[in-house]
Amino acid sequence: MKRGLFVGRFQPYHMGHHNALLNALREVDEMVIVVGSAKESFQPQNPFTAGERIEMISAALKEDGIFGKCYIIAVDDISEYALWSQRIKSYSPRFEVVFTNNPLVKELFEADGYTVKKLVSNIKQVDSTKVREKITKGESIGGMVPSAVESFLRKINARKRIESILKDEEKQ
Amino acid sequence: MKRGLFVGRFQPYHMGHHNALLNALREVDEMVIVVGSAKESFQPQNPFTAGERIEMISAALKEDGIFGKCYIIAVDDISEYALWSQRIKSYSPRFEVVFTNNPLVKELFEADGYTVKKLVSNIKQVDSTKVREKITKGESIGGMVPSAVESFLRKINARKRIESILKDEEKQ
Amino acid sequence: MKRGLFVGRFQPYHMGHHNALLNALREVDEMVIVVGSAKESFQPQNPFTAGERIEMISAALKEDGIFGKCYIIAVDDISEYALWSQRIKSYSPRFEVVFTNNPLVKELFEADGYTVKKLVSNIKQVDSTKVREKITKGESIGGMVPSAVESFLRKINARKRIESILKDEEKQ
Amino acid sequence: MKRGLFVGRFQPYHMGHHNALLNALREVDEMVIVVGSAKESFQPQNPFTAGERIEMISAALKEDGIFGKCYIIAVDDISEYALWSQRIKSYSPRFEVVFTNNPLVKELFEADGYTVKKLVSNIKQVDSTKVREKITKGESIGGMVPSAVESFLRKINARKRIESILKDEEKQ
Amino acid sequence: MKRGLFVGRFQPYHMGHHNALLNALREVDEMVIVVGSAKESFQPQNPFTAGERIEMISAALKEDGIFGKCYIIAVDDISEYALWSQRIKSYSPRFEVVFTNNPLVKELFEADGYTVKKLVSNIKQVDSTKVREKITKGESIGGMVPSAVESFLRKINARKRIESILKDEEKQ
Amino acid sequence: MKRGLFVGRFQPYHMGHHNALLNALREVDEMVIVVGSAKESFQPQNPFTAGERIEMISAALKEDGIFGKCYIIAVDDISEYALWSQRIKSYSPRFEVVFTNNPLVKELFEADGYTVKKLVSNIKQVDSTKVREKITKGESIGGMVPSAVESFLRKINARKRIESILKDEEKQ
Repeated sequence: MKRGLFVGRFQPYHMGHHNALLNALREVDEMVIVVGSAKESFQPQNPFTAGERIEMISAALKEDGIFGKCYIIAVDDISEYALWSQRIKSYSPRFEVVFTNNPLVKELFEADGYTVKKLVSNIKQVDSTKVREKITKGESIGGMVPSAVESFLRKINARKRIESILKDEEKQ
Repeated sequence: MKRGLFVGRFQPYHMGHHNALLNALREVDEMVIVVGSAKESFQPQNPFTAGERIEMISAALKEDGIFGKCYIIAVDDISEYALWSQRIKSYSPRFEVVFTNNPLVKELFEADGYTVKKLVSNIKQVDSTKVREKITKGESIGGMVPSAVESFLRKINARKRIESILKDEEKQ
Repeated sequence: MKRGLFVGRFQPYHMGHHNALLNALREVDEMVIVVGSAKESFQPQNPFTAGERIEMISAALKEDGIFGKCYIIAVDDISEYALWSQRIKSYSPRFEVVFTNNPLVKELFEADGYTVKKLVSNIKQVDSTKVREKITKGESIGGMVPSAVESFLRKINARKRIESILKDEEKQ
Repeated sequence: MKRGLFVGRFQPYHMGHHNALLNALREVDEMVIVVGSAKESFQPQNPFTAGERIEMISAALKEDGIFGKCYIIAVDDISEYALWSQRIKSYSPRFEVVFTNNPLVKELFEADGYTVKKLVSNIKQVDSTKVREKITKGESIGGMVPSAVESFLRKINARKRIESILKDEEKQ
Repeated sequence: MKRGLFVGRFQPYHMGHHNALLNALREVDEMVIVVGSAKESFQPQNPFTAGERIEMISAALKEDGIFGKCYIIAVDDISEYALWSQRIKSYSPRFEVVFTNNPLVKELFEADGYTVKKLVSNIKQVDSTKVREKITKGESIGGMVPSAVESFLRKINARKRIESILKDEEKQ
Repeated sequence: MKRGLFVGRFQPYHMGHHNALLNALREVDEMVIVVGSAKESFQPQNPFTAGERIEMISAALKEDGIFGKCYIIAVDDISEYALWSQRIKSYSPRFEVVFTNNPLVKELFEADGYTVKKLVSNIKQVDSTKVREKITKGESIGGMVPSAVESFLRKINARKRIESILKDEEKQ
């Protein structure tokens, strides 16, 4: 059995992430999804708590029937980059393959003896910044995020959250 | 839909935990299992990493077909107890009921408006300390832990791990 | 008896703060003044230590005979915003009303069940940045800060402090 | 004008502290009261939050009309003892004399050029441990703590707090 | 015997540093070289670990026969600037003179009673940013860094390291 | 060229350490001496600062003419044991062999692919606790520590330091 690792901040989890995950799941049996910057929340680039991100990702995975193949773990940042891959290994179930397009993550895990593969998403035009902007403007994000994520964001009133954070930012 | 919260260190996850979980799952639809003291490992009371604990709990839940009803989240300690319940809320999917026999956890969550219920386990004679002692002596832990946990502990050679840690302790 | 909360960095404490405090004190019996970012000092935006800020605010309150109605507490930053209101509650005497114009602080405390009111200052043209600039240029800050604060800043030679910090900044 | 420094954990603030403070106030004009271990609370040795300790000390000082001569600052622990006196200096209004019976505090501040004097209390039979024990047993603490502190502890239901914490301790 | 202190980040150690060190060593018998921001590495401005920086500086000192006159200590950052000089004193062998051109470092150490002298380098056209740029482009850094440093950087493949970090930066 | 690693707290550095170092230096060309628990000082088990320990070890190495073969690095503790060997690697010049008698250190570094060898000292009757006890009693430690360490401890008045710390301990 082969397990992969997929790191992101998922602020929020969108179709680009989801599609890349589905593609990567063709190459491994199970995936560890690392919710990075776990402690960051209520900030312009990081509006959602780790718990909210775990909840929205879980909902999307259940919607597609792949929750049973995934582990979702929240990992907080470490200012010592030299310790970062070790921190991930200590928080995660064992894994063999790392999926990333980030050259530094690639270097750190390769130095540690891991196979590193590219993340391939067929949905390239979506990113978290765009999704947050749409939410702020009150525009529909249908199609940009899994529908379970869309419902979740509506339920927690993501729009009000992001607006408050942005107003706070402007004032300073 | 109602979600519960169940906090433990799970060093390791044993039948006492598992039975209490099964009982509590009769009262809620889903359960958030909090792996506490996430950063502690390679220590006499805390031999296993958060990742290892997540992996062993997942295996036990899958064995019993209840993985789909649970979230497993690792949360590190906070020296400021006054912030602890808030930390849990920030790391966890939303929950309504807290299952605990710990009077302080009860007080902190009740003060925060949560319903707190007792954990009831039909298997009272097992605790983590006893399991670790058996492992050290090379005795069977069959029946004390879910069989998937037993296999997992054998696979990572838990005996050697615990022996090294204990020898280290004695020397100091 | 009703107690309010008033959060600021007070680098330094100026007439805008002071006037808003006097206005807010018409609505509550006592006020907790939170000196935020307590650990920051000797930096361009944060030249003064928590101790210096406590001392200058106390001097201003005594000058106006309202020291006995106020508590001044220093609170350091917390990178986990989700825990911030809890940190304040743990460091502060009990309070019922939060005075703030910051939308995020408003959201966090309202979610926690607090009444949040606007801070109203009749002195709008003064802010800490302007005061620091005047100090650097050696210009008078009379009228911009309470006179007890003016004396204090002269006594600790605030001008030399800010100049050293700014030169340091330019060099990097 | 001469200012003194008086460090304690004040769990809770009792007549021994109060009497020593009154004696020390004969030698200086003002006193900085440092509420140490600010972040510790909800623990057997440290049941009360920094905010609660500030509130109870303030009440006692007001009762005796000496609130206007004191500053109460909360300072969290620092694991690097070599930095401790510097941390105090950064959080506190300027002071000249340190009142302490602790030989290490004496050494650290003398090395830093401060005058260190002994704390003299006429009330020697009271200490925080005894007060907490009385509270747990539901016995009167009248005379052991200033009456304003007694009222405060009753208002926050200190007995229930300490009982929950102690039960938690026993269980582990 | 008189000992000096010389603080830098040394990312990497270059001829400007080295020449200033040689000049300063005419005024003191021994020098403590502080490798600052010790925990930062694998970042655009801070590509090298503390260990790598200690190793490259040592090699350069040995090359010039002055290793026996120097102490190299790694010190991590402290967010509380008010504690910074105390941190250095706690990590360093005793010293009497501080060599620095940084006005804030000057202010902090002078306030602490130290003699502060200017660092004088005859090699002004070299700085760490330029060296890192040359490395990235694959151009020779001969003459910009001591030859022992040049060999070391080649051995650890500094070029690949810096390229990975910079690509990572661009992506975000 | 082969480099070894030797970890200790060195509170203080004594003949047992020194003899083991000399023996180990027969097997490698250079040695990295790790001064562990760098931030701990002014405590009963850890009276000396990292800087003092670096200074006393350096003096002993110079006395024996082996300073040029050694690197002395101070490393602070990390509560996450799983990251500990990575922290050492990030703070230390590259090394190939680890000298330790500690089974956990052995396990952690072997898991990381390092050769681990036993430390062999011909001087078994000396340990740091005994040395500290002798110092407190004002008895001679001649022969227990290198003579350069003895002079250093006298110069900083180690006896007074340890006495103050112990009295502090007794009081609590």
